[in-house]
Amino acid sequence: MPYPDAIQNALDELGRLPGIGPKGAQRITYWLLARDFEDVARLTDSITQLKESISFCPQCWDFAENGGLCKLCDDPRRDESQLCVVEEPRDIIALERTGEFRGRYHVLHGSISPMDGVGPDQLRIRELMTRLASDDIEEVILATNPNVEGETTAVFLAKTIKQLDLKVTRLASGLPVGGDLEFADEVTLGRALEARQEL
Amino acid sequence: MPYPDAIQNALDELGRLPGIGPKGAQRITYWLLARDFEDVARLTDSITQLKESISFCPQCWDFAENGGLCKLCDDPRRDESQLCVVEEPRDIIALERTGEFRGRYHVLHGSISPMDGVGPDQLRIRELMTRLASDDIEEVILATNPNVEGETTAVFLAKTIKQLDLKVTRLASGLPVGGDLEFADEVTLGRALEARQEL
Repeated sequence: MPYPDAIQNALDELGRLPGIGPKGAQRITYWLLARDFEDVARLTDSITQLKESISFCPQCWDFAENGGLCKLCDDPRRDESQLCVVEEPRDIIALERTGEFRGRYHVLHGSISPMDGVGPDQLRIRELMTRLASDDIEEVILATNPNVEGETTAVFLAKTIKQLDLKVTRLASGLPVGGDLEFADEVTLGRALEARQEL
Repeated sequence: MPYPDAIQNALDELGRLPGIGPKGAQRITYWLLARDFEDVARLTDSITQLKESISFCPQCWDFAENGGLCKLCDDPRRDESQLCVVEEPRDIIALERTGEFRGRYHVLHGSISPMDGVGPDQLRIRELMTRLASDDIEEVILATNPNVEGETTAVFLAKTIKQLDLKVTRLASGLPVGGDLEFADEVTLGRALEARQEL
């Protein structure tokens, strides 16, 4: 059945969002139609605002507002001696949620992936090296993802950074807390065995 | 961790959409940040347009555009003698998808639900009765949902409409096609048995 054009348009646009299929787009569209004008304007304004005011932090390349430093780079209480290197801004959110790290971050915006044509030059590695050369950093924690691309990136960075005579560490791989040993894949279990610790 | 305000705002607004939780809102927000300005403008424009140009069809109360009749009421090829009464505009989409009905529709915008304070006066029943009195309708098909509120509404409408000496029918209840008898709930199975048909 032909929808009115304005509804079809909204269905198409909403259906292109990640994680939203045709059913979800229909549900949201009918929900929006039942809302007040002001309610819906708040939603569209927040999206427009997102695109207009968010920029990259010129120091760590996380998201920042109005062209300035991000909240973490701007916070003098953070430990200057530790730098945690991540692939994406969302990884910072995950690490901050642990409450275990008080240092600073650097966002690469991707990982080395020859299959996708992404080499070291497409990532924020040059900016990282400049930062390492000038700042008072003592330890670099490589927190790229524990997959092929993330490991490749970590190995590459470790080799490059060690030339600067800095301590380089990598997040531990092992069994997820709360998981069952019998359901762990063999690579994870192998890593956990290899990195076993004395009690 | 504190997000930049513009990101927090978008997360809040997107998280209020139906079927989108905090994880989904975060995924969409980061996705939007990686898109072009024009791409995102197309999305927000489609939502604004939705609210600005969609109105209710003054005949059947389905959604229509720019204050006119909806596409179905405006289509002279539809059968004037059959009227299908539904609770919501989305029910029309579902019925049209079957391709089995060529008549017209009437949207009640809800169902009788004393628990939620919704009586006949809160629904488009007065408009339905006016339509039945003046148009060339011969059969009214009650296609409200097969739940307590929908059944109550159907029983109420059947009683009211029969006074006009019109044929009133109701969608059949029974086993869903492709389903297994053993998994059918007892009410559905009871209805299917009651409404059994000779072959």
